[in-house]
Amino acid sequence: MNSFIAPVDLKNAYRLINHGPTVLVSAHHGGVDNVMAAAWACALDFAPPKLTVVLDKNTRTRQLVEQSGRFVIQVPTVAQVQLTNRVGSSSLADDPAKLAHAGVELFRMDGSALPFVAGCSAWLACTLIVEAHNQNTYDLFIGEVSGAWADTRVFRDGHWHFQDADPALRSLHHVAGGHFYAIGEAVVASPQE
Amino acid sequence: MNSFIAPVDLKNAYRLINHGPTVLVSAHHGGVDNVMAAAWACALDFAPPKLTVVLDKNTRTRQLVEQSGRFVIQVPTVAQVQLTNRVGSSSLADDPAKLAHAGVELFRMDGSALPFVAGCSAWLACTLIVEAHNQNTYDLFIGEVSGAWADTRVFRDGHWHFQDADPALRSLHHVAGGHFYAIGEAVVASPQE
Repeated sequence: MNSFIAPVDLKNAYRLINHGPTVLVSAHHGGVDNVMAAAWACALDFAPPKLTVVLDKNTRTRQLVEQSGRFVIQVPTVAQVQLTNRVGSSSLADDPAKLAHAGVELFRMDGSALPFVAGCSAWLACTLIVEAHNQNTYDLFIGEVSGAWADTRVFRDGHWHFQDADPALRSLHHVAGGHFYAIGEAVVASPQE
Repeated sequence: MNSFIAPVDLKNAYRLINHGPTVLVSAHHGGVDNVMAAAWACALDFAPPKLTVVLDKNTRTRQLVEQSGRFVIQVPTVAQVQLTNRVGSSSLADDPAKLAHAGVELFRMDGSALPFVAGCSAWLACTLIVEAHNQNTYDLFIGEVSGAWADTRVFRDGHWHFQDADPALRSLHHVAGGHFYAIGEAVVASPQE
């Protein structure tokens, strides 16, 4: 865990994913850690903060989420584009050393077994709100955020600072097939009269 | 309807929102049109394409969606940042001329009553898949995409072309309180060995 990581007030947790980044989903159960990429993750509520994420039935991470009832949603950076693409396109079922091959380094927070991916810009620890119909019919999972952290070099005082930070810390926004866009410049709407 | 608008193959429809843009949600019922902004919209499936969007109970647009069973999700541009912020922060209930005051121009497609917002970069016509528990408990709505279109100056041949297009056509990614980021540069993962 690097010294730039600081807790984010839960009332601002939605801001970590409000701009629509591709995320990494990680989970742990029975001695197994796994990480996958997901472009289909989205805020769902402010307080308590909730989010949705789509987890395909073929993924090992989904099994770990269902078994443990917990997961982490984290925001990877431009520096992690290869890692993000790799964990999104290989499966632990086919490659037991998937995480090592993708260059994933995990760390733990607050003594919990939840695996956090090092080098990301933000982390949301989630508890699964079981909704069997959504999970079975739509692969749609709902999590309540119980803790949030960010790298203060790029998110602090409740705001992203992409415009001032190292460009390698920008978020990734996947389109398809390994083609991403980085987040760009700030655009502020004028106050309304 | 401008001459740059072309249909998008439904198999590529998810790509219009895969990078996490803030969207505009529009709907029509009983002679009333409305448009709101939503940062909480997300792809849900590829084929048939589906998406989720969170619609607060206080919004008039949500009523129109529930009454008509149809809505449009569209991707506003940097040129529309004021429009996006205005339709996201005023209500038709308080201002019957909301759309005019926000500078919204609507057009119709294919003889349908669905209202499309002019000047956006992409449009997804959706049919509501009624899920009462999700709607009532989470304000979460699921739509199946029945038609998709894009402005070919920025999306064509199944791909976004933000890097070559007029910067005014970039997508907007809302953080909070009228503070957006524009989408940035392309980042492509290397092919895996």
